[in-house]
Amino acid sequence: MKALVYCGPEECALREMPRPALHAPTDAIVRITKTTICGTDLHILKGDVPTVTDGRILGHEGIGIVEEVGAGVSSFQGGDHVLISCITSCGKCAACKKGMYSHCEQGGWILGNTIDGTQAEFVRIPFADNSLHAVPTEADEEALVMLSDILPTGYECGVLNGAVKPGDTVAIIGAGPVGLAALLTAQFYAPDEIIMVDVDDNRLQVAQKLGATQIINNSDGQAVEKVMALTERRGVDVAMEAVGIPASFDVCQRIVAAGGHIANIGVHGQPVQLNLDTLWSHNITLNTRLVDTVTTPMLLKKVLSGKVAPRQLITHRFKLDDIMTAYDTFSHAMRERALKVLITND
Amino acid sequence: MKALVYCGPEECALREMPRPALHAPTDAIVRITKTTICGTDLHILKGDVPTVTDGRILGHEGIGIVEEVGAGVSSFQGGDHVLISCITSCGKCAACKKGMYSHCEQGGWILGNTIDGTQAEFVRIPFADNSLHAVPTEADEEALVMLSDILPTGYECGVLNGAVKPGDTVAIIGAGPVGLAALLTAQFYAPDEIIMVDVDDNRLQVAQKLGATQIINNSDGQAVEKVMALTERRGVDVAMEAVGIPASFDVCQRIVAAGGHIANIGVHGQPVQLNLDTLWSHNITLNTRLVDTVTTPMLLKKVLSGKVAPRQLITHRFKLDDIMTAYDTFSHAMRERALKVLITND
Amino acid sequence: MKALVYCGPEECALREMPRPALHAPTDAIVRITKTTICGTDLHILKGDVPTVTDGRILGHEGIGIVEEVGAGVSSFQGGDHVLISCITSCGKCAACKKGMYSHCEQGGWILGNTIDGTQAEFVRIPFADNSLHAVPTEADEEALVMLSDILPTGYECGVLNGAVKPGDTVAIIGAGPVGLAALLTAQFYAPDEIIMVDVDDNRLQVAQKLGATQIINNSDGQAVEKVMALTERRGVDVAMEAVGIPASFDVCQRIVAAGGHIANIGVHGQPVQLNLDTLWSHNITLNTRLVDTVTTPMLLKKVLSGKVAPRQLITHRFKLDDIMTAYDTFSHAMRERALKVLITND
Amino acid sequence: MKALVYCGPEECALREMPRPALHAPTDAIVRITKTTICGTDLHILKGDVPTVTDGRILGHEGIGIVEEVGAGVSSFQGGDHVLISCITSCGKCAACKKGMYSHCEQGGWILGNTIDGTQAEFVRIPFADNSLHAVPTEADEEALVMLSDILPTGYECGVLNGAVKPGDTVAIIGAGPVGLAALLTAQFYAPDEIIMVDVDDNRLQVAQKLGATQIINNSDGQAVEKVMALTERRGVDVAMEAVGIPASFDVCQRIVAAGGHIANIGVHGQPVQLNLDTLWSHNITLNTRLVDTVTTPMLLKKVLSGKVAPRQLITHRFKLDDIMTAYDTFSHAMRERALKVLITND
Repeated sequence: MKALVYCGPEECALREMPRPALHAPTDAIVRITKTTICGTDLHILKGDVPTVTDGRILGHEGIGIVEEVGAGVSSFQGGDHVLISCITSCGKCAACKKGMYSHCEQGGWILGNTIDGTQAEFVRIPFADNSLHAVPTEADEEALVMLSDILPTGYECGVLNGAVKPGDTVAIIGAGPVGLAALLTAQFYAPDEIIMVDVDDNRLQVAQKLGATQIINNSDGQAVEKVMALTERRGVDVAMEAVGIPASFDVCQRIVAAGGHIANIGVHGQPVQLNLDTLWSHNITLNTRLVDTVTTPMLLKKVLSGKVAPRQLITHRFKLDDIMTAYDTFSHAMRERALKVLITND
Repeated sequence: MKALVYCGPEECALREMPRPALHAPTDAIVRITKTTICGTDLHILKGDVPTVTDGRILGHEGIGIVEEVGAGVSSFQGGDHVLISCITSCGKCAACKKGMYSHCEQGGWILGNTIDGTQAEFVRIPFADNSLHAVPTEADEEALVMLSDILPTGYECGVLNGAVKPGDTVAIIGAGPVGLAALLTAQFYAPDEIIMVDVDDNRLQVAQKLGATQIINNSDGQAVEKVMALTERRGVDVAMEAVGIPASFDVCQRIVAAGGHIANIGVHGQPVQLNLDTLWSHNITLNTRLVDTVTTPMLLKKVLSGKVAPRQLITHRFKLDDIMTAYDTFSHAMRERALKVLITND
Repeated sequence: MKALVYCGPEECALREMPRPALHAPTDAIVRITKTTICGTDLHILKGDVPTVTDGRILGHEGIGIVEEVGAGVSSFQGGDHVLISCITSCGKCAACKKGMYSHCEQGGWILGNTIDGTQAEFVRIPFADNSLHAVPTEADEEALVMLSDILPTGYECGVLNGAVKPGDTVAIIGAGPVGLAALLTAQFYAPDEIIMVDVDDNRLQVAQKLGATQIINNSDGQAVEKVMALTERRGVDVAMEAVGIPASFDVCQRIVAAGGHIANIGVHGQPVQLNLDTLWSHNITLNTRLVDTVTTPMLLKKVLSGKVAPRQLITHRFKLDDIMTAYDTFSHAMRERALKVLITND
Repeated sequence: MKALVYCGPEECALREMPRPALHAPTDAIVRITKTTICGTDLHILKGDVPTVTDGRILGHEGIGIVEEVGAGVSSFQGGDHVLISCITSCGKCAACKKGMYSHCEQGGWILGNTIDGTQAEFVRIPFADNSLHAVPTEADEEALVMLSDILPTGYECGVLNGAVKPGDTVAIIGAGPVGLAALLTAQFYAPDEIIMVDVDDNRLQVAQKLGATQIINNSDGQAVEKVMALTERRGVDVAMEAVGIPASFDVCQRIVAAGGHIANIGVHGQPVQLNLDTLWSHNITLNTRLVDTVTTPMLLKKVLSGKVAPRQLITHRFKLDDIMTAYDTFSHAMRERALKVLITND
């Protein structure tokens, strides 16, 4: 089968690879119909993720059709239309029992990381009963593929961790796909203001269409000052970091109000400075989280009923054969005005 | 009256000062019978707290007898035996209504900071109805003075912010008075283990007497390794920072388990490094808080009924006339084997 | 001044009464510009509320202009435009400090109950700093008067007590003003379905306009069966009782799903039967609450910004001189197609 | 094998029955070494539980040794020493994912109810990975058998549902095994007072030894009056119903303070009267729950470390051959001064 294979830092290739087979009775094999590329895949390509080794098939998002299941799988069978969760959950370890699937003893984020992933014609999904979600035959696959990772990530790491509540003023630093997913799902809690900060006017315009009440282009580095001016110098109830760099974390810690929340969504490659000299007395809560995908069933209902329309985040579409072009487009997101790039294989 | 007056960095003196008078109808004047010195007072003396200006009477802890009340005070009258909260609360601003008295618009930590404090014969207490607590005439004043600050600080900033729960493994970095207050009150929630870390064997022995299940002397810098070994490399559910320096914060972030809590109690004079490059995916919660003293009524009941015995934290006793010696003792705590030093004025 | 006076069961009259004067330094006198009649006022007229005695001026909702304040009032002064909370809060007792103003030791629901109320030209408001809310001069008084009671009641007793969350299925039994207030504010939490149950088609049509996704006319007593059919026999996550009679409570307990919530909003005049023989193992939470009005500041922002438009609940308008007609209209709500009746005095 | 078999209302017998075999790959067969009788078993014998049919082996508590596991069981193997949970959990349905194992689509309380139970030499445990707990070889089986049901029931249905917190006043109505389990585990949260109410002096004396701060014999029906007197007429923060009859529920609703909790632990055979006419404005929370056993791992650590010693609840010991006598003893608990009766089979 065709698959996108990591070949060491800065290199990947579309190659012919052996089709995956069942390893354990709890496995399923899924034929991928739609997948996409995540910012994390770009991190991997830079060599930032040492657990990914040469020869690994990348990708942790996808929609497909179950091809085959092991004897221990009871909720799915061949032919079922399924959503693949980016997080694999065994359902029986201490972490899974707490709903912290991200730290499952045998699972967590393993797809396209420590085992082969979804940017391929077929993928093997361990613990299929707990790691796949049934979707209706006729469902809109383009919308659903946003549920593998970015929608639960924006919601769990940004909105739930930020404890957004009615009347809040929220700032989201970073209007990329995950920041926009946080924007879409923050609206479940009726905040009064959602201020979106980025350096790309195109993304800010998208944010405005998707519900941002204020947009700030931080190309001039004045975001902190502007947010403080907008909030009568009180700051924001919730500041979400959706980029993954020290500068955007710093904006968050400078704009959070006393009693407020900093919710980290970004994947960070280096430490940040935390201003405990001012924040020690500021009654703040800071949360980090690798998405657990515990909210996927709820979000799936929202997408199926049309209440959330994440399809709007897709800007480009490619065939699996053209995935190298897709990577190029996605890695030049600003130039290409790209948000999510969809990879089709049907 | 006699009072301990701040005279600029590194200088203070016991001086004759005018007795305070009522300014507002919601004020009370309290005659101080017992007070004490806080680690924060030492910070002030170093010149670290710019809001404290030359000529300020220090001190934010105390027990005393109400001397006089303004016309707007309805819960207290002359002769009442009272505990002074280190935090002043107006009871009507948005912060007070949320129980975040530390950020009261007209109050918060002002005693011995922006207004004159308790290391004196008399003190003026604004918003007395919300900032004093009635105590029985015959109550043990030595135990009660621990309720002005350190007991609610250890409990609110350490235990509540750390969300200690039955079965938890807790580590407290710093066995000074506030760390020990956290140790005493963490036991309200039946954690399985409380590991106490310090560099002073005397303090660690006190910790053991007060309920620590493990003690670690970190003079060799091996605390992280030792905590990880004690916890089968899982780390701790709750790590409390009770020193206020980057090194002890760093211990916390290296020992916190996935899904765990870092609760900051220490007063920090400089920023710290936060390892978001590892913690972004670790599902942690970090909290800071200036004590709100919302739990003082509950803690007061615990002390009055003898269920918590904070008197054990008092190692030295002085008359107000000898407060300069008290400061000297407290500022050489390790040499003097000092925890809390009590100042008596009756 | 003119005032609506309770004259014992089934009797009330518009009378000339003495203008209220300040009693305590924390009082304010407010000139009423708008008030309204509450379902509770009808209960009082039936003689159901024994704390209301002959000669009492009724009414606990209102908007007005501050006429005069006591020496202890610091947040308001003559001429201020204010919203009157139906709940009086001293801001310093144990209940107030917990945010349970409804059980304030000296306040709670006293207006138009144990002290004279707002259906008059003037009213005395005790503890004005904590019991009034400033509103902009030009604000829409008709919308704001809904904030004295019904909007916080629907929100706190129904939505917060019911713990409505994104994706939930909610049923509200009773589409009167308070049930509709719950409907408006439940939408802050993005439930998937809000099923409204009543026996009055007019009210159900209003509910549909205000956001109900399903309406059920229970004139045939088939509401339980219909709700179970709509929910694939799973029941609802949240059932709100917004009538105050055993029959509607019974609907709630029969439709609540395992793990679900029953939130009581209604004022009950008699006990109900609770089916613990089936519910003991059903993992339900049942909450009751007299509104605390702690959420009024947030709701006020929602109304001022137009995000919530409670003005739609007003169906009739009267002058204070015609308040007897207003009572007649409101007490024949179905016949008159009445929701809230507004009383104007300006 | 020998097993205690239900033979219709009021009848049961120790009979020779076929040894259970594996049905599904996720099953395990456990050889029972210790079991016990639950109050629910007596309800079954009275014919109160219609899901239990003639020929059913009773019992849902037990400790044993794994005899055999199906191919889909990965956490256990033959020879393992295990604790059996009274609740069976599949680990993959919506209820299990929420931690509400009691409402597991294929599990819940099925042992000794809809499938054969533990009062036998062997038992089949479905979904063994999620329904058994590993225990050390040398562990005290007598203490551990209290963890199958009563300890998590007292803790989850009483203490967690009651939201017991430091400083609370708690009343537990019913000093039977489950009420005493609630008493033991309520102490995890440092309440100030635990008032135990029963009609049996023997049980009340046991309660006093296990930590009750007040005991009330309600033979005179004066419990409500006595609790109100003990609490300065404020009532209790948490009232736990641990009997399962209308009279004890009624005590709870009459003694709960404003803002307090009623936690139902008892198994009820008939409806109760709920005084909504007084409670509607009392800001109470009432919870019901069939134990989910989500806290069993934490409680297991507490018992293994000796921090909780539930062995004290065992008053009588019998061989499996004498289980009919054990039933007789347990069903005359007051006469026999019985709490838990242990059944040994090794």
